[in-house]
Amino acid sequence: MIKVGIIGATGYAGAELVRILLNHKDCEIKWYGSKSYVGQNYADVYKNMFELVEDECLDDNIDKMAEEVDVIFTATPQGYLSTILNEDILKKVKVIDLSADYRIKDVDIYEKWYGIHHGSPELIEKAVYGLCEVNREEIKHTRLLANPGCFTTCSILTAYPLVKEGYIDGNTLIVDAKSGTSGAGRGAKQQNLFCEVNESIKAYGVATHRHTPEIEEQLSYAAGEEIVISFTPHLVPMNRGILATEYASLKEVTLPDGSKGYPTSDMIAEAYNKYYKNEKFVRFLGEGATPETKWVEGSNFVDIGFKVDERTHRVVMMGVIDNLVKGAAGQAVQNMNLMFGLPEDEGLRMVPMFP
Amino acid sequence: MIKVGIIGATGYAGAELVRILLNHKDCEIKWYGSKSYVGQNYADVYKNMFELVEDECLDDNIDKMAEEVDVIFTATPQGYLSTILNEDILKKVKVIDLSADYRIKDVDIYEKWYGIHHGSPELIEKAVYGLCEVNREEIKHTRLLANPGCFTTCSILTAYPLVKEGYIDGNTLIVDAKSGTSGAGRGAKQQNLFCEVNESIKAYGVATHRHTPEIEEQLSYAAGEEIVISFTPHLVPMNRGILATEYASLKEVTLPDGSKGYPTSDMIAEAYNKYYKNEKFVRFLGEGATPETKWVEGSNFVDIGFKVDERTHRVVMMGVIDNLVKGAAGQAVQNMNLMFGLPEDEGLRMVPMFP
Amino acid sequence: MIKVGIIGATGYAGAELVRILLNHKDCEIKWYGSKSYVGQNYADVYKNMFELVEDECLDDNIDKMAEEVDVIFTATPQGYLSTILNEDILKKVKVIDLSADYRIKDVDIYEKWYGIHHGSPELIEKAVYGLCEVNREEIKHTRLLANPGCFTTCSILTAYPLVKEGYIDGNTLIVDAKSGTSGAGRGAKQQNLFCEVNESIKAYGVATHRHTPEIEEQLSYAAGEEIVISFTPHLVPMNRGILATEYASLKEVTLPDGSKGYPTSDMIAEAYNKYYKNEKFVRFLGEGATPETKWVEGSNFVDIGFKVDERTHRVVMMGVIDNLVKGAAGQAVQNMNLMFGLPEDEGLRMVPMFP
Amino acid sequence: MIKVGIIGATGYAGAELVRILLNHKDCEIKWYGSKSYVGQNYADVYKNMFELVEDECLDDNIDKMAEEVDVIFTATPQGYLSTILNEDILKKVKVIDLSADYRIKDVDIYEKWYGIHHGSPELIEKAVYGLCEVNREEIKHTRLLANPGCFTTCSILTAYPLVKEGYIDGNTLIVDAKSGTSGAGRGAKQQNLFCEVNESIKAYGVATHRHTPEIEEQLSYAAGEEIVISFTPHLVPMNRGILATEYASLKEVTLPDGSKGYPTSDMIAEAYNKYYKNEKFVRFLGEGATPETKWVEGSNFVDIGFKVDERTHRVVMMGVIDNLVKGAAGQAVQNMNLMFGLPEDEGLRMVPMFP
Repeated sequence: MIKVGIIGATGYAGAELVRILLNHKDCEIKWYGSKSYVGQNYADVYKNMFELVEDECLDDNIDKMAEEVDVIFTATPQGYLSTILNEDILKKVKVIDLSADYRIKDVDIYEKWYGIHHGSPELIEKAVYGLCEVNREEIKHTRLLANPGCFTTCSILTAYPLVKEGYIDGNTLIVDAKSGTSGAGRGAKQQNLFCEVNESIKAYGVATHRHTPEIEEQLSYAAGEEIVISFTPHLVPMNRGILATEYASLKEVTLPDGSKGYPTSDMIAEAYNKYYKNEKFVRFLGEGATPETKWVEGSNFVDIGFKVDERTHRVVMMGVIDNLVKGAAGQAVQNMNLMFGLPEDEGLRMVPMFP
Repeated sequence: MIKVGIIGATGYAGAELVRILLNHKDCEIKWYGSKSYVGQNYADVYKNMFELVEDECLDDNIDKMAEEVDVIFTATPQGYLSTILNEDILKKVKVIDLSADYRIKDVDIYEKWYGIHHGSPELIEKAVYGLCEVNREEIKHTRLLANPGCFTTCSILTAYPLVKEGYIDGNTLIVDAKSGTSGAGRGAKQQNLFCEVNESIKAYGVATHRHTPEIEEQLSYAAGEEIVISFTPHLVPMNRGILATEYASLKEVTLPDGSKGYPTSDMIAEAYNKYYKNEKFVRFLGEGATPETKWVEGSNFVDIGFKVDERTHRVVMMGVIDNLVKGAAGQAVQNMNLMFGLPEDEGLRMVPMFP
Repeated sequence: MIKVGIIGATGYAGAELVRILLNHKDCEIKWYGSKSYVGQNYADVYKNMFELVEDECLDDNIDKMAEEVDVIFTATPQGYLSTILNEDILKKVKVIDLSADYRIKDVDIYEKWYGIHHGSPELIEKAVYGLCEVNREEIKHTRLLANPGCFTTCSILTAYPLVKEGYIDGNTLIVDAKSGTSGAGRGAKQQNLFCEVNESIKAYGVATHRHTPEIEEQLSYAAGEEIVISFTPHLVPMNRGILATEYASLKEVTLPDGSKGYPTSDMIAEAYNKYYKNEKFVRFLGEGATPETKWVEGSNFVDIGFKVDERTHRVVMMGVIDNLVKGAAGQAVQNMNLMFGLPEDEGLRMVPMFP
Repeated sequence: MIKVGIIGATGYAGAELVRILLNHKDCEIKWYGSKSYVGQNYADVYKNMFELVEDECLDDNIDKMAEEVDVIFTATPQGYLSTILNEDILKKVKVIDLSADYRIKDVDIYEKWYGIHHGSPELIEKAVYGLCEVNREEIKHTRLLANPGCFTTCSILTAYPLVKEGYIDGNTLIVDAKSGTSGAGRGAKQQNLFCEVNESIKAYGVATHRHTPEIEEQLSYAAGEEIVISFTPHLVPMNRGILATEYASLKEVTLPDGSKGYPTSDMIAEAYNKYYKNEKFVRFLGEGATPETKWVEGSNFVDIGFKVDERTHRVVMMGVIDNLVKGAAGQAVQNMNLMFGLPEDEGLRMVPMFP
């Protein structure tokens, strides 16, 4: 039985970790860490957990926690973990960080986009970026796992095969992303009130959103060259789900018949199948499919479709995830499974809920 | 491995059965029966099932199905099953009927409220009303199970202990129920369009809703006398969930100290605990709790709270369920577990999803 | 041109007042009073007002305001106005109070239900309860208007004719009310976040909600005797709208043919028509109608239907309003029109928005 | 008093026309034309109109209607009007067509994108494209007005000044549009049911949506050269509102100091002000603003913001409208006002409703 501690168990991502781990047959949550609810019953903070969780919320003392558990999940504000994590802790426990602190290899880029001083840059090198479908082998051997962001998971996986195959020009990539409101967290802010969000849609963080450099870094690795993209998130009046609609110009390549030309729909479908056919959690829906966030709600799936626009020689790629599952807690558990040698889908066989 | 057939697999309740049974370790769905989608891939009808269900939809030939499966779930329009079910079929398979055809013992009442001719009244007597928390032992031995309605499950369980204990006057019972829109089904009707339902609430079927006599029959058994109630359903702009707010006048009873008086909050709490303390799927939240449908979403739980109003000598009881789970498919699986000698919660350990 | 000041212009009710008054041909808003946004552009607080309102928010100095305007609307927290209002102010301006401070004649009842000390009980007697359809003549002559609460407006008007005619037993009256979330205000509270409210429904304030004594007082006047009711509000995932579903036992009365019996549907319809046929803002939809909140959205209408339940000798009455219009700002303007001798519907001819 | 006839009065756009025209002081609706509801009370089809509209629905006999009214609004399925309209009718009445039949000057393009035979191509030349802010003078003198589509109105006005000024490369323009569900109409389709739309978002019509050539045609006029764009609409779980997020590469231009370079934020803001400062219904919110659909709900406004991305030399433009008002009925009335010499905002001074 893997003993689990969670720092930030009372945020939405933390609560989703709890929901998933309660049905994970090899795990036991030993420590519900919180900042605001210490001493309160966890089931009073999340009433859906009544009779399912009997524990009280504890504090977020990572040193003490490291003595008592095998793995710590951190679902904490940006910058916080970097100030408390160190080698000693990592010797005792594995750490899976749902914040952004160890995702970006270049600490200057991190500090610039986040406007935060990084407290332990020396650990960044040790961290593995936990996009399972791309970094599976490294993940298995790390003790410090940087769990990808919600927008980034969706954005990267949707474009990855076409970038990797050199079918699209990375610098033409535009990611127009739409997210449910749970991504904004459980903090009491006027802008996230029901009446402010409901019956409305808006963009935010235009040209400045912090997930941009994370997407760029990973896609640059795939492309073998630096890529600069446009990324625009939008807030949608729904609880869960991210849809990334991605646009890129096709590059002229050598076609199967030896001539030069734009990749065909068949070639693009083949590229997706090449990378994802054996991936349990990526479902490639085929050409012309327009995935809906509802098709993956509550599950760890990424659903992907695409359409070639012959008039503009662009391809429109579309991917959806549940931001709290594949975009946060589910992917974190997928990473844990890899790090502990368990079946990758253990505890993650949730069937999407519809409607 | 229990072989399962579903008639009506392409309605919302049928789809929820599929969602649950895919994670039931002792079951295998052998027959996805449909009227409208015969020959189509089930996963094209419900795209959330992509790569999870490979089967095509078959027809709804119950005789053929009876040869090939161990249990048939029927999620069919009212009246349909009564015209095709017979003793021969019941000799071969167990039948769990999610429609209303065998719920009401008095066929005249059924025919009056439903405005339908009942095709096999002789089978009604054999059927067991599948409210597990009330009829557990009979359920274990039946071959024909009448799965309760969504409003009725919630309405009955919320009031049952107080009726049974004689604490409330059944004829003063008013059930004001609120339901998510999935209860209206997947048929294309103008009144259920997004723009017609969203940002609105309304009552419907006032004083005439078909679940009324079903609630009355069961509560009358509990009371030991005939009870006539008021029942009003409402349509709420959400996908899932039922909240029943129930009002009843308290009856004067003998209090613990021997005097006459109205039952106290403590006595009422005790009554709920008496009947539900050992029930895995009923969570009694205590005096003053006001359950929210979100606390049970996606799960088989019933959450119940109450409040005594000293000014009016009424008690307000509140219960919530997920209409597609405890109100339909989940309860059906709970019944199947009982009928096949499995642990009652097999395949039903879903943790409520929040948010 | 009537000069208007608003204290509390930056809450939802205040903003709705602004929306309505901008199209009122005889009014000019001179003072946008606020506690939290002094010095900010009103259109920065409510961006829908861009280019429509050029003014900055001012403070809430009622004495200064009284020198500069003809009427003050107060949309302030309970208890606040009672501590700052006095005879001097009322000599200079008319005051329309959207809070509860002057609604209840018995100051003890106010202080008990609200848990607040009343700062100016001597003014209560002067105040007129501003339910236009009931108190029209008194309203015309008052300088201190107590604008009714949202739940109360809907609850009272829905039952009023049947109480007045003696057709129902007031002490059997149960009001099960459902409200959109704008009723909870614009304050940043976790419980009102989108993800907490969306896809859920719950009761709150069971047997203790402050609108209860207000409904009781007004219906007692109508009945000519004291009435004690049950009132339960619910929170619905929508922005606007209140639906009151009301249950009461019919009283035996003398029927048109001289015999004794329960009032018929025709008699009840006649009672509604008697009181509302000439009311511009009350639309009686007839027997069997089940009003939807969407039918009145954005307008000052109250829509009412009913159904007699022959089995229980109860009548189910249903009424809907837009809580921010007829339940707050619209009714306040209707009262202002009466107090200033204008056509009662001036500025209030909004057609309900659908969808 | 202008006498108005509406063909298609029972669709959502038709109903919005009714809502607006009921408060237009110079208009009177004489003919509520319908296909499906002939002989029914209009207020039974739209219950929000109870006591506001007393008329029955009539048929859609355009010849008869032309004798009795001064202007006909047609909110009909694509292709229908083209088969019944002719010169004779246009001699008698002015026609404002909310369908697409006369929007596109090249009939081949119309027939290709719509897959419909055009019944009266000879009338196309006479029609004026009714984007008031662009074609105001022509509109004043036409008898056949092609009212722009909802997506197109929003998409064109958001990009127009930058295209017109030559600041962006039209062929890099990508329009990612998000629409509320009322755009899908009131027809009973499974895909538009509440449970299918709610809690989900999806793209549709990728690279094939019919509004594409309409946007291209108008922006090509502005650019003075042919422009080919990418356009992707999305369905959002809300009733009303369109947000167009538009991406384009900036073109190097001569800067104010005489050097070559990309247009600055100031230059772009100035361009918007140049075209829109005097437009009552276009509200330019400035650099960095991210408009929300809620800010224009129920009103005829277009709200526009933008952000320059220095890293990619792209500009992100964002515009919002209410699809049923500025995107349909409101713009149609604005056009009518121009065509009849009335103040352009007559009947259109609706203040956006928030929340």
